[in-house]
Amino acid sequence: MPTPATQTHRIVRIGLAGLGNVGAGVYKNLAKNAGLLRERTGCLLHVSKVAVRDLSRSRDCEVPEPILTTDWRDLVNDPKIDVIVELIGGTETAFELVSAALHAKKPVVTGNKALLAERGQELFALAEVNRTPIYFEAAVAGGIPIIQTVQEGFVGNHIRSIHGIINGTCNYILTRMRDAGISYQEALDEAQKLGYAEADPTLDVSGWDAAHKAIILASLSYGYWVKPEDVLVEGIQNIHLADMAFADKLGYGIKLLSVIRADAEGRVEVRTQPSLLPKSHILASVGGAYNAVLVNGDIVGETLFYGKGAGQDPTSSSVISDLAEAAATLVFGARHSGFVPHGLYGKGKPIDETVSHYYVRLSVDDKPGVLGKVATLFGDRGIGISSVVQPEDLSADHTHLVLMLDDAPLKVMREAIAAISAFDSVREAPVWLRVETME
Amino acid sequence: MPTPATQTHRIVRIGLAGLGNVGAGVYKNLAKNAGLLRERTGCLLHVSKVAVRDLSRSRDCEVPEPILTTDWRDLVNDPKIDVIVELIGGTETAFELVSAALHAKKPVVTGNKALLAERGQELFALAEVNRTPIYFEAAVAGGIPIIQTVQEGFVGNHIRSIHGIINGTCNYILTRMRDAGISYQEALDEAQKLGYAEADPTLDVSGWDAAHKAIILASLSYGYWVKPEDVLVEGIQNIHLADMAFADKLGYGIKLLSVIRADAEGRVEVRTQPSLLPKSHILASVGGAYNAVLVNGDIVGETLFYGKGAGQDPTSSSVISDLAEAAATLVFGARHSGFVPHGLYGKGKPIDETVSHYYVRLSVDDKPGVLGKVATLFGDRGIGISSVVQPEDLSADHTHLVLMLDDAPLKVMREAIAAISAFDSVREAPVWLRVETME
Ligand SMILES: NC(=O)c1ccc[n+]([C@@H]2O[C@H](COP(=O)([O-])OP(=O)(O)OC[C@H]3O[C@@H](n4cnc5c(N)ncnc54)[C@H](OP(=O)(O)O)[C@@H]3O)[C@@H](O)[C@H]2O)c1
Ligand SMILES: NC(=O)c1ccc[n+]([C@@H]2O[C@H](COP(=O)([O-])OP(=O)(O)OC[C@H]3O[C@@H](n4cnc5c(N)ncnc54)[C@H](OP(=O)(O)O)[C@@H]3O)[C@@H](O)[C@H]2O)c1
Repeated sequence: MPTPATQTHRIVRIGLAGLGNVGAGVYKNLAKNAGLLRERTGCLLHVSKVAVRDLSRSRDCEVPEPILTTDWRDLVNDPKIDVIVELIGGTETAFELVSAALHAKKPVVTGNKALLAERGQELFALAEVNRTPIYFEAAVAGGIPIIQTVQEGFVGNHIRSIHGIINGTCNYILTRMRDAGISYQEALDEAQKLGYAEADPTLDVSGWDAAHKAIILASLSYGYWVKPEDVLVEGIQNIHLADMAFADKLGYGIKLLSVIRADAEGRVEVRTQPSLLPKSHILASVGGAYNAVLVNGDIVGETLFYGKGAGQDPTSSSVISDLAEAAATLVFGARHSGFVPHGLYGKGKPIDETVSHYYVRLSVDDKPGVLGKVATLFGDRGIGISSVVQPEDLSADHTHLVLMLDDAPLKVMREAIAAISAFDSVREAPVWLRVETME
Repeated sequence: MPTPATQTHRIVRIGLAGLGNVGAGVYKNLAKNAGLLRERTGCLLHVSKVAVRDLSRSRDCEVPEPILTTDWRDLVNDPKIDVIVELIGGTETAFELVSAALHAKKPVVTGNKALLAERGQELFALAEVNRTPIYFEAAVAGGIPIIQTVQEGFVGNHIRSIHGIINGTCNYILTRMRDAGISYQEALDEAQKLGYAEADPTLDVSGWDAAHKAIILASLSYGYWVKPEDVLVEGIQNIHLADMAFADKLGYGIKLLSVIRADAEGRVEVRTQPSLLPKSHILASVGGAYNAVLVNGDIVGETLFYGKGAGQDPTSSSVISDLAEAAATLVFGARHSGFVPHGLYGKGKPIDETVSHYYVRLSVDDKPGVLGKVATLFGDRGIGISSVVQPEDLSADHTHLVLMLDDAPLKVMREAIAAISAFDSVREAPVWLRVETME
């Protein structure tokens, strides 16, 4: 057992691919806290080479010119480099880079959730074959050590469910819509100005960024690699202030919520959807760019993890802890590839069979009989209605009809909504949102 | 790199000392989730021997008689046993047991915060010499993996501060006093009936249980073993409903709060005290037997960890994750003893110099001039008064005077309170409590 504070320090040479938002943070913070890291890990974490796309770009961190390259292969092929950090983003070059690093037996640290969600199965197989691990704490929930918690802290638990607010951009937009009463578009513009949303915000607002993170958490929890096509994903682009207001009156907030859970037969459902959440629930009070993950384990019970889910510093905190882990691995050997298959290599629950409460808002003619027709239609399909709100501030001849529905399978809901859409008295496409009762 | 799911499983033989609340939980949950643990760790975690005090006691878990013993030495001396789990509590026999296990080169898993807080320095030195680690996730905040988070997840961070609600018994009592308007004694009786408080609740209500946990967190964060005598500890026994009510009116709740932080010169202060907390703060909403730990790191920013802080199941979740870690250590070697000295082997801040806002309640004669005298006394000592409340519902000739004070060093506060106590117009010993502004 080495005594980190007294031994000669081992130098760990890092090849850093990407010097953008996160990459620059890693570079700066490794330098800032170098002394602390040396004492705590017994290693000198040294960045030996940095790959970027454009050498001429001005950067907010000073990197000596000789260590910069525009060819990531220079990192992977350098026999002196011990560990590769992949922070270039995207799924094509990044896949090549990570594969090449694993072939070269260099442990990889990455924050790339898209890459792992889409190609994790291949990459971990490659890691296994090459006996070289991948670390990815930064890929989910920024600075919150949720990967380590699910993989190690709760190793003895069957995970019952995970509920997460894991996209700060969407959470910022929804929080601003609620608090400032501004529209989706206005809140998005604001988020872009403040740097909380990218110029092309599609990956975030479509729900896919959160879904990628949910895929990773689900795969770790249930021991098989979840496929993107088995995941239900809805974005926040169509959330209206009207629905926020109705939800509020009913005692709910609207959040982009990722839900992972296993049913009694062990079938796993993974979804990311704007969802109504009781205002009294702790997740409903997670505002702005913060993330929170609620994990329910069969032994530990309910636990919550909260912190900044993105940004240069929080994300680099996780990259650095992975680097410390990778450094230990170089000395002691890797315990596993980063992903341990288990649990009978689980099975997904068909999305159509997933069951939830729902909120439905209809724009209907203000004539008697409409509610009756709608209620009969749901009733015929076995869907209970727990409450109906018919607000009074309406235009001359049409009105909103808001229904809260009890548990309904998605397939049945889709059919019911399609049938209702065809009613003459229904004016616009019905709005329907999932309600998370957190029972 | 072994493939846990396919390889032949290594058997890890566990010697379990203690089969009380937590020990029985570990035994039951290891059995319940044995399959999952085998797949995830590649090991069979097998309890080979169990030490108890009284063989005749009836237990809520069935342990085969031949593996029971009343002599813990049977565990330590058995060459087949790989790991020792210490769950007997107390600091004398437990110290002997852990020392003997380390001498025998058997890794130790313990939930004993009193032992580590009082004798951690000796034990980790012994662990170092014997190159045999101690694991203690269960010692702080039950099922919440806060030890791992501070040691590994935030390895790259200078810890700015930790604020924790880390004693469920006290939190339950204070929550009930506030919500049900019952006295300290009534709430304690209730907690004892429900099993949230022990027959002898001293360790909890005195603040010392939380202080032990704070000592462990502070030691890990700042890299030197904090001494119990350098910690400020106050219990909740003297919290009055009157103060809860005044705090409430001023916008605060009262919590047993543990605070760990370093000042600009790196001097560390560790305190556990009933403290006023703004009601709007997330920690103020942690109710009942739950625990929450807020960690502020210089890179990661503010993070929160929340879950059940005690009880058979949550605590055994942490013991089991430590067992998985110990099992990996048996294969790969131990990375460190469980405690890595660092940070120039820090120094404590003298308690007298710690600075805080304060709440003061005086019972005074209802005569003009009293407030003036009190205000002058604080003013002369450089302590600002941010607000004064003089409630109107009073008896004929005396009244409460409630003051909120700005930053004051403890030494100055003590002198000021002593001086005020001597005033003729002050009827009872002044009540004064720390106010945590969470700035
Ligand atoms: N931003 C966050 O808060 C956050 C949080 C968690 C995870 N992540 C993940 O971290 C990764 C990086 O995110 P980011 O925000 O730092 O991205 P970014 O600001 O766009 O930075 C990307 C960096 O990669 C470089 N790069 C791109 N393609 C390259 C190539 N083919 N060869 C060499 N260098 C290349 C770019 O070079 P130039 O500078 O020359 O253009 C740039 O420095 C992504 O996977 C993202 O999902 C980000
Ligand atoms: N309870 C919690 O929620 C919790 C949470 C976190 C940490 N912890 C810590 O975990 C430890 C155990 O707590 P607990 O609540 O499980 O205590 P407990 O219920 O009092 O159980 C203590 C066990 O140790 C046995 N024991 C005591 N002295 C012994 C000796 N000299 N030789 C052999 N066996 C002996 C007792 O045997 P008998 O059964 O024969 O009397 C009993 O089984 C303590 O350090 C505590 O601080 C507890």
